Amino acid sequence: MAAEPLTDLSRCAVHTMTTKPWSLEQALAGYAKAGIPAITVWRQHLPAAGAEAAGRLIRASGLKVSALARGGFFPALDAGKRQAAIDDNRKALDEAAAIGAPMVILVCGAVPGLPLAEARKQIADGIAAVVPHAQALGVRLSIEPLHPIYAGDRSAVNTMAQARAICRQFDQVIPGAIPGEKSSDRKLVGIAADVYHIWWDEALEDELALAGHHGWLHGFHVCDWKTTQSDMLNDRGLMGEGCIPIRTIRGWAESAGFNGFNEIEIFSTTRWTGDQDAWLKTCLDAYRAHV
Amino acid sequence: MAAEPLTDLSRCAVHTMTTKPWSLEQALAGYAKAGIPAITVWRQHLPAAGAEAAGRLIRASGLKVSALARGGFFPALDAGKRQAAIDDNRKALDEAAAIGAPMVILVCGAVPGLPLAEARKQIADGIAAVVPHAQALGVRLSIEPLHPIYAGDRSAVNTMAQARAICRQFDQVIPGAIPGEKSSDRKLVGIAADVYHIWWDEALEDELALAGHHGWLHGFHVCDWKTTQSDMLNDRGLMGEGCIPIRTIRGWAESAGFNGFNEIEIFSTTRWTGDQDAWLKTCLDAYRAHV
Repeated sequence: MAAEPLTDLSRCAVHTMTTKPWSLEQALAGYAKAGIPAITVWRQHLPAAGAEAAGRLIRASGLKVSALARGGFFPALDAGKRQAAIDDNRKALDEAAAIGAPMVILVCGAVPGLPLAEARKQIADGIAAVVPHAQALGVRLSIEPLHPIYAGDRSAVNTMAQARAICRQFDQVIPGAIPGEKSSDRKLVGIAADVYHIWWDEALEDELALAGHHGWLHGFHVCDWKTTQSDMLNDRGLMGEGCIPIRTIRGWAESAGFNGFNEIEIFSTTRWTGDQDAWLKTCLDAYRAHV
Repeated sequence: MAAEPLTDLSRCAVHTMTTKPWSLEQALAGYAKAGIPAITVWRQHLPAAGAEAAGRLIRASGLKVSALARGGFFPALDAGKRQAAIDDNRKALDEAAAIGAPMVILVCGAVPGLPLAEARKQIADGIAAVVPHAQALGVRLSIEPLHPIYAGDRSAVNTMAQARAICRQFDQVIPGAIPGEKSSDRKLVGIAADVYHIWWDEALEDELALAGHHGWLHGFHVCDWKTTQSDMLNDRGLMGEGCIPIRTIRGWAESAGFNGFNEIEIFSTTRWTGDQDAWLKTCLDAYRAHV
């Protein structure tokens, strides 16, 4: 059963990559003006002045931070690169803490030529290596399963079930969680569920239920899947332009206990060329109509 | 463990779509000249004179027919279109029988706006409707699970496990199979496994083993997955150009009892513009080096 329509923007967040041409300062101003309460900050949008400075800008704007995107990319063909990835993920956690992001979204990584099974092992090892730092900072690590289209070079974690298998290896609860408290996102290592990547999975309803039950359901991202895309990465659809039953899937997430932000994350070379205020308004109209 | 390298072309087949610009007659001549023993005929390459005439051409060429591509596309938003699809699949079976193809490859279908679960039900219903005709003709129905990239409009069957769930609904054995005989392709409804679509699936080795065990492993298709593709359909990679561990997967299929043709199926707008004899030679070099 689909969820009830959303009557306001109180649970809406926007990724800075959705309005890629905007600086963080422009995005904060644009989102605030549009009545959007939260922002997911991509690291490339952190200002040259650094994450502490970004934190000050964000706090001054009044917006909440839904997440920092992105960490991950753990697998590599040599140990030096794997260590560099671990170090970079620790840095991402520091940045998340500095801007008040409750989680770092993980695009876990994959390397052509490295067997997927080995990549998955390196991903779990990489997460294990940064868990203590995440725990100390109180920042969640949120695995985003990526569509199998990206299994070659972006992520060897391509289904909710695979993300779940990794989450199960960790039992840390986020600092501050009340013992015995049942919330869908209480575990330190969990999942950012993006409809673009997982909509086709026949197990999706059950997987969301399990993720919520175990405290792994950290985030929920929306856009749409167009059956023809001019680019494998940067031609995502606006909600309603494609074939994803977004409202049905949101209903499943909410049945699983999810009550966080619905994050609008749309990579679109075409949309990035136009006026970003107008594009943002288009996104919000589609959010009300289709999410 | 990867399979041993192939030392000859005795198990090599080529899809007419790999050399799309060629007519059936040109393909038969070109493949025979190159020493390829078998052809998978796409229906669009059947001559205007019809399937009986195609059968005569093929028999005169000395090539075996590995399969007819393609039937399927069962789901539709209205009953009339679903019936038309069933009728068309019966016609495809007739054509397969006429050219001596042991199987019709099924691209099962999907329709934007039709829930995937409903599409899957319509696919199973459609197959059930044509099974008696297939049984009468002795032609297999071979479900090709398609990559999730095509879940929107080409197939709601996107994994080996989903194909297996449909196969399990049918217990017909191909006419002529010896009772008690154990061959990997003895069931009337089975699977055409194409590495492009299924390489990313962590269950692949087990799924191939199960398919072989149950007599569902009808076919095996090869090409490669390039991490960047200029088109979602017609920019497939030549074996060795991408990241699929093809020889490892062939080893899994052979461990499952598969000893049929390795069918080269490459859709490539770029490759179709060049000299097709040269392109075919390139395919065969890559077949020896990477399959």
